[in-house]
Amino acid sequence: MKLTILGCYSATPRVNTNPTSQVLETKGNIFLIDCGEGTQVQLRKNKIKFSRIKHIFISHLHGDHYFGLVGLISTFRLMSRETDLHIYCPKGLKEVITLQMKLADSWTNYQLIFHELDSDSSKLIYKDEKVEVHTIPLKHRVYANGFLFREKEGQRKLNMEAVLENNIDVSYYRKLQQGFDVKNKEGKLIENTLVTKPGTKSKSYAFCSDTAYSEAIVPLIKEVDTLYHEATFLEQHKKLTTSTKHSTAKQAAEIANQAQVGKLILGHYSTRYKDLETFRKEAQTVFEQVELAEDGKTFEF
Amino acid sequence: MKLTILGCYSATPRVNTNPTSQVLETKGNIFLIDCGEGTQVQLRKNKIKFSRIKHIFISHLHGDHYFGLVGLISTFRLMSRETDLHIYCPKGLKEVITLQMKLADSWTNYQLIFHELDSDSSKLIYKDEKVEVHTIPLKHRVYANGFLFREKEGQRKLNMEAVLENNIDVSYYRKLQQGFDVKNKEGKLIENTLVTKPGTKSKSYAFCSDTAYSEAIVPLIKEVDTLYHEATFLEQHKKLTTSTKHSTAKQAAEIANQAQVGKLILGHYSTRYKDLETFRKEAQTVFEQVELAEDGKTFEF
Repeated sequence: MKLTILGCYSATPRVNTNPTSQVLETKGNIFLIDCGEGTQVQLRKNKIKFSRIKHIFISHLHGDHYFGLVGLISTFRLMSRETDLHIYCPKGLKEVITLQMKLADSWTNYQLIFHELDSDSSKLIYKDEKVEVHTIPLKHRVYANGFLFREKEGQRKLNMEAVLENNIDVSYYRKLQQGFDVKNKEGKLIENTLVTKPGTKSKSYAFCSDTAYSEAIVPLIKEVDTLYHEATFLEQHKKLTTSTKHSTAKQAAEIANQAQVGKLILGHYSTRYKDLETFRKEAQTVFEQVELAEDGKTFEF
Repeated sequence: MKLTILGCYSATPRVNTNPTSQVLETKGNIFLIDCGEGTQVQLRKNKIKFSRIKHIFISHLHGDHYFGLVGLISTFRLMSRETDLHIYCPKGLKEVITLQMKLADSWTNYQLIFHELDSDSSKLIYKDEKVEVHTIPLKHRVYANGFLFREKEGQRKLNMEAVLENNIDVSYYRKLQQGFDVKNKEGKLIENTLVTKPGTKSKSYAFCSDTAYSEAIVPLIKEVDTLYHEATFLEQHKKLTTSTKHSTAKQAAEIANQAQVGKLILGHYSTRYKDLETFRKEAQTVFEQVELAEDGKTFEF
């Protein structure tokens, strides 16, 4: 999986910082997650091919997470796109976009398919042969979801030495890769794990922004490889999290720790802070593997 | 008058070019004209104080002229603005903005006052003691207006030598400045122009984008000091103006020539062209005083 941060600051776009948007590349898919104002320019800067984006996931309807979407949809139209575009988003966004297209008397040639979400429990919203996406219900001022991207388990690898030793016919190799026990040429049942090794480990990524501290998400993101969790504030401003329903860096780390994730990426920083390293330091008092999101930064895992 | 071009390219925002937006400073006002995506960042780059913007004029509801507005309104809210904000725009925009505020459950503390326009004839839409703004109905694919900003005539200046010579009482000086003839101490009527000189010449600016070639606007913009007229295409692509309802550089110059304006500024270039000088050259075959808009460029007149 390759994650490109297009924007990771809260609130308003500024000259050198962008509101939330990121791109996850996995198994041939390019998933766009959130789409703050200026996202299409950030996509260009980061050389992401517009035509490869087929699925856009919008966490919630605060402007810093979606005000760039209508412009991107419009640009796709101007580029004569023909491929379907799927948008997974809270209920209401379809009306916003449709109203603006109607007023402009400009409709897309391509299919624009909204998958509007309103459930408070985790749902499977996308799957193909290699990847599944589930929602992660978050705790915010308005209805909000994070998203869990999980690659399906890869096939097991044959241990050829053991396969030959056990005298298994070649027609059973595929069954072995799929994890089944098979009979050998003598009719003896051979246990799969004796003759195969685990395949490539499947990767997982959880995006959780915006949200107040919520232990309810821990079971959903258990042991993911990488967790992006918002850290709008530092503990010194913890009292602000009550009304704003945001988290501190330390709270993000507590969630990462409880969920035993591989790595925690912090983002959605309030622009009141000048030095992002203080976010890392605060989080590392609770959880060691902390990375800082920055506009234009990529992470591979 | 001082005009700052924030963005002057058509269609989509790109890394180094911005969609339409400009700021006109005149007589203490800061008028924002159109507001494509990224306008708030362009305002910051050009050091325009957000709090001084009280009137925003939106020409039409194609995205490259207004997709930045909802974000700007939202940023004003985050900055705890309290001053009223007036928006002059085609009918429909109020619904777009209100719907998005409703979905975000985020309402402005300041008064947001929409002046929705739907007339096909020129209307006075703003006036204060020093400036008036009229609409300029344009010819485009959707309902569109340009805007004419005209400073009111300044007071006449007293020619003190002549005033004293004509024995006019000091209580009549204000009448003289306002242009009236007055009686002197001997009861003789003194013609105003004998004892006063013209005041500062009042300036005028006309913004006309987007529009097809339309001679109907000529009487409305007659002899303005500066005309910004869209020039999306060059004559080599003139056939595209029919369906898109845009103009060529030469057509813009023809309008400037018929209206006998002081200066023509071209903008709203299609991004297909690499060399903007070709726009100037084409326009100058018809009209001499041509300037090219560029993002970040200012014009004083």
